[in-house]
Amino acid sequence: MPRLPQGFRAAGVYCGVKRDATKLDLSLVVSDRPAVGVGVYTTNLVAAAPVKLDRERTPSESIRVVAINSGVANACTGNQGDADARRMAAWAAAACDAHEKQALVMSTGVIGAMLPMEKIQAGIQAAAAKLGNDEASLENAARGIMTTDTVPKIRGREVTLGGVATRVTGIAKGAAMIGPNMSTMLALVMTDAALTVGDAHSALVDALDESFHCISVDGHMSTNDTVILLANGAAYERAGSSLSERAGSSPTPLSGKALADFRTTLFEVCEDLAQAIPADGEGATHLVTVEVHGCRNRQDALRIGKTIADSPLVKTAIAGADPNWGRIVSAAGYAGVPFDPSKVTLHVNGLLLYERGAPVDFDAAAAAKSIAAARDTSIVLLLEEGKACARFWTTDLTAEYVRLNADYHT
Amino acid sequence: MPRLPQGFRAAGVYCGVKRDATKLDLSLVVSDRPAVGVGVYTTNLVAAAPVKLDRERTPSESIRVVAINSGVANACTGNQGDADARRMAAWAAAACDAHEKQALVMSTGVIGAMLPMEKIQAGIQAAAAKLGNDEASLENAARGIMTTDTVPKIRGREVTLGGVATRVTGIAKGAAMIGPNMSTMLALVMTDAALTVGDAHSALVDALDESFHCISVDGHMSTNDTVILLANGAAYERAGSSLSERAGSSPTPLSGKALADFRTTLFEVCEDLAQAIPADGEGATHLVTVEVHGCRNRQDALRIGKTIADSPLVKTAIAGADPNWGRIVSAAGYAGVPFDPSKVTLHVNGLLLYERGAPVDFDAAAAAKSIAAARDTSIVLLLEEGKACARFWTTDLTAEYVRLNADYHT
Repeated sequence: MPRLPQGFRAAGVYCGVKRDATKLDLSLVVSDRPAVGVGVYTTNLVAAAPVKLDRERTPSESIRVVAINSGVANACTGNQGDADARRMAAWAAAACDAHEKQALVMSTGVIGAMLPMEKIQAGIQAAAAKLGNDEASLENAARGIMTTDTVPKIRGREVTLGGVATRVTGIAKGAAMIGPNMSTMLALVMTDAALTVGDAHSALVDALDESFHCISVDGHMSTNDTVILLANGAAYERAGSSLSERAGSSPTPLSGKALADFRTTLFEVCEDLAQAIPADGEGATHLVTVEVHGCRNRQDALRIGKTIADSPLVKTAIAGADPNWGRIVSAAGYAGVPFDPSKVTLHVNGLLLYERGAPVDFDAAAAAKSIAAARDTSIVLLLEEGKACARFWTTDLTAEYVRLNADYHT
Repeated sequence: MPRLPQGFRAAGVYCGVKRDATKLDLSLVVSDRPAVGVGVYTTNLVAAAPVKLDRERTPSESIRVVAINSGVANACTGNQGDADARRMAAWAAAACDAHEKQALVMSTGVIGAMLPMEKIQAGIQAAAAKLGNDEASLENAARGIMTTDTVPKIRGREVTLGGVATRVTGIAKGAAMIGPNMSTMLALVMTDAALTVGDAHSALVDALDESFHCISVDGHMSTNDTVILLANGAAYERAGSSLSERAGSSPTPLSGKALADFRTTLFEVCEDLAQAIPADGEGATHLVTVEVHGCRNRQDALRIGKTIADSPLVKTAIAGADPNWGRIVSAAGYAGVPFDPSKVTLHVNGLLLYERGAPVDFDAAAAAKSIAAARDTSIVLLLEEGKACARFWTTDLTAEYVRLNADYHT
């Protein structure tokens, strides 16, 4: 299991936002020294209060703490919601002797309900008393941000950057928007590498472009989606001196090959976290990887991939273990991207179903069996328009998804 | 029940394309005199053979016959499919003593399979022998184009244009794309009004803009979608002489107020037909009307309406009778249309749920009851950006839809 990077401590507690007291609903992540903090947020015009607060405070060179609650999303709550987000951040900052502006917040859960502020305050204090750098603390933090997720999502890498052993570790949540009014994909990635604010932001944006931006469970973009990267440079403290002794000095930010290696590692961690979301999609029985090759540019490839991934007919076909090339090819056809339909080739799970504009005589029973037998399904569409490609991940669509999202009252 | 316009005859027969011999699978519609024929077709790049043929032959001033089969869509079938579509048209033309180019064809059903041409040929001959202007003939023609539709879709109006009693009557099919590989929305609208080709095309395009272009069951655009309008001018024959006597003369095309009235009537018929499709949506328990008001332009309103209508989370909420304003408002937020989220107001079934950016204290139980009690659900979203509006129709999303589209092998 991945471990927290140096200089980070985490905790997750139950404070009563959720009804079920066997779950956790409040997580705290603290960097012992000020960390570079950058974020990427939902582009939904209807943005939740925590997103508005974090947008104001990032990018930053001195983030100390992130407080995250699950159970109530603090979205669509007007001025009261904004004030609550600020109070939540202030308590988190106080709990680790930081300045108010050094705290970020995230919330996920019911839309439109107010945060139960007394419980949140008590939860932050309880979490602050439990902070640790061990595996259990990290796992509790990952559990405290779950809503309908069935498993905590923790991914990480250890990598040597410029001769220094460094970690990049992330936690994420998200399984769809679910009800009543549940929402959101959240992720927090921590590293003890040292980065400039600019490099951190650029690395995060690029990493998301091929990870979190390439997943979809139901195509419904939440009001709370947030990915934060914290980089505290603490890896460089390990060799000689203790953190507390040198907390004042700033390590030299990564550059050159070490920075490039960091970017690769960050991308890998984001990719792992992103895949974990549709893999745990509500009611899903398949994780579907859609690859589109041979496009004029990456935007075209992404658009075709997303259109295939979002088609309920493609998703139900996978749920039914049907190698339904007609639904896949016709979804590509309405993606709004020009291409020559007589030059389209399709493989599903490595089997050629459709070649240069026409179906081939394939073994349908074997293809169906290969979809039914594995949780992973691969769709590879090849055009002949250019050299750009993209990968997109999604789930199948099952009656269980509908049950979870329609009948949650019963 | 609507009746066929003057000078049109129709028939529907079973010819063996479908397995179930209690159904009909081939329809013929004949205009006794050459009719103005215009069409609007799928914009899917992967277009079926019948669409390619009809695109070549319309607009036209002399269409005599339309042959439509269900059961096999003749889509993605390469050169053989093109040749089959041409042969089907030639047989239809021969069956009513018309020139080959005076025939159009449509197909709906399984993608990728070849048409069983012997059965099609026999079916066209059988249908030609049964052509009639009565209600039963029209209903059989509407039944012969059904796939997973549960009811035939026939709508019409009688209207006096320039002092002459005229009819506008249409048939349509479509309930989703369904499996294995089933597809398509088809509609054929007939009128005995006289129109120029240009006026017919312009009237059809405008009518579709607010009818067939504003419906969605699953957002998956088929390779075969086709709407054809035939206008034969036969209404003007009624008063004095028989059709055969005056078949050679051309009535004066509508203009001025009469043309405007025709356009209104055509729009009403198309709207009725379009609504009938999601009303009969696969597994649907609700017909959902999404109205968006107060936009800068119609495109903005349509885009927001379609985004709400296509959200699986909105659709499952309606299936579950949940007045889930959060899903509706957040779907509007990611439609890609700029608006001020603090000026959004939402009514569901006439109940105010959300006003100028914040939820109101509404009676959730009463709202849920009103959704559960009726098949029609109304979503009205009001922005304050401008004066444009749009209406969009869709279905809810039920476990039955998933079952129909995933488990069709069993």
